[in-house]
Amino acid sequence: MPQLYIGNKNYSSWSMRPWVLLKQAGIPFEEVMVRFDSFNGDSQFKATLRDLTPTGKVPLLVDGDLTVWDTLAIAEYLAEQYPDKQLWPQDKAARARARSVCAEMHSGFTALRGNCPMNVEADLAQAGALIWRDKAGVRADVARLAAMWEGLLDQYGGPLLFGPFSVADAYFAPVCTRLKTYALPLPPKAAAYVDRVLALPGVKAWTDAALTEKDFLDFEEPYRLTP
Amino acid sequence: MPQLYIGNKNYSSWSMRPWVLLKQAGIPFEEVMVRFDSFNGDSQFKATLRDLTPTGKVPLLVDGDLTVWDTLAIAEYLAEQYPDKQLWPQDKAARARARSVCAEMHSGFTALRGNCPMNVEADLAQAGALIWRDKAGVRADVARLAAMWEGLLDQYGGPLLFGPFSVADAYFAPVCTRLKTYALPLPPKAAAYVDRVLALPGVKAWTDAALTEKDFLDFEEPYRLTP
Ligand SMILES: N[C@@H](CCC(=O)N[C@@H](CS)C(=O)NCC(=O)O)C(=O)O
Ligand SMILES: N[C@@H](CCC(=O)N[C@@H](CS)C(=O)NCC(=O)O)C(=O)O
Repeated sequence: MPQLYIGNKNYSSWSMRPWVLLKQAGIPFEEVMVRFDSFNGDSQFKATLRDLTPTGKVPLLVDGDLTVWDTLAIAEYLAEQYPDKQLWPQDKAARARARSVCAEMHSGFTALRGNCPMNVEADLAQAGALIWRDKAGVRADVARLAAMWEGLLDQYGGPLLFGPFSVADAYFAPVCTRLKTYALPLPPKAAAYVDRVLALPGVKAWTDAALTEKDFLDFEEPYRLTP
Repeated sequence: MPQLYIGNKNYSSWSMRPWVLLKQAGIPFEEVMVRFDSFNGDSQFKATLRDLTPTGKVPLLVDGDLTVWDTLAIAEYLAEQYPDKQLWPQDKAARARARSVCAEMHSGFTALRGNCPMNVEADLAQAGALIWRDKAGVRADVARLAAMWEGLLDQYGGPLLFGPFSVADAYFAPVCTRLKTYALPLPPKAAAYVDRVLALPGVKAWTDAALTEKDFLDFEEPYRLTP
């Protein structure tokens, strides 16, 4: 059974992606949580990962003697290992498009990611309103997401980006939680997609667990002094 | 025949990756060069790409009525379309590892990328020496590259990262040109790998073309006032 190393569920957006992918697809796995005490060289977090992965980051998939790091490589590995789960769309053109939007997420949306770090349990609507007013980059990122999602929902007919659940929905799940946390405005069709993603059992299992975590980490909290 | 949209060969490191992949694998394609006049909204560059891709970036692969953007999605698409070219390693574990290092490159090495932008024709050994002295992040990125490359060369026996040419070598090709341009120090085995990559016909075809380009763009030149 593969092991997935993850960080704090409240904060670790990259960990959330493969975890949701596995959970929602019904692939059995063992979760290994490595708490974010800090990302300094002398942290327990880095000490735990040191002998496992050269990047010192989560997520990390360990399957027998194979170690796969980085969310995109993990997704491709799982798609190959569990072909019956159809993690990527079956149609060639849809699959190419799904990979394009995942890769775009993987290296982009830096304004949204930088200004609105994931924080499942928090209500940061105020901070969100100020960010929305002041940060053109965040508005541009959200406009791109809305256009992407609405275009794909129109093209493939919903309910998810490529019809049924795929890697792409897992990839945008942590973005959906942020849009809620920071109450960023979205057009109706995109907002409805966010609600559908957040209601997926695999996503809800993660966010529910995040709510019970109660592990407040200052360095992940640019907008709160206390919980 | 697929069309690959690229930017200036002297500067566009992301464009170089799929171009080298196609060229070195011997896959016929048509190159469409979109000059980097600027990346502003009113540039000719953005106007050309506007109706082709929602990201407004190169590279972009157009294959019939299919449009694939982002280097990683393009690589996966080509690997599926041309299975006989074996663009990814054939062994499952090697393939997972190749995808991990490509995804790591795709979203990481930000100190090296930010401080040492690609510039094939330039000799920036002086700038490189100052960067090396002052930027711990660049030193850490190069140390990680050297360890990665030497580890893979040991494990798979060379001459390239996974034995024969693969997506991974195309992915690191623009890094190899930078290491030369900025004359950054490398241990011998990693330095020999850089030389082998730069001597690949598909890589040399790109760098030779970059040398004839003679299109000096101020916004890509943090270290030179004139050619
Ligand atoms: N590109 C990586 C990003 C992974 C990443 O940045 N993970 C964060 C946690 S969400 C981490 O481990 N950070 C530790 C550090 O930056 O030192 C992926 O897609 O897996
Ligand atoms: N993650 C993208 C990055 C593409 C990218 O940043 N391309 C640059 C040229 S090397 C670009 O088109 N920049 C235009 C801009 O930033 O507006 C990929 O892997 O394809």
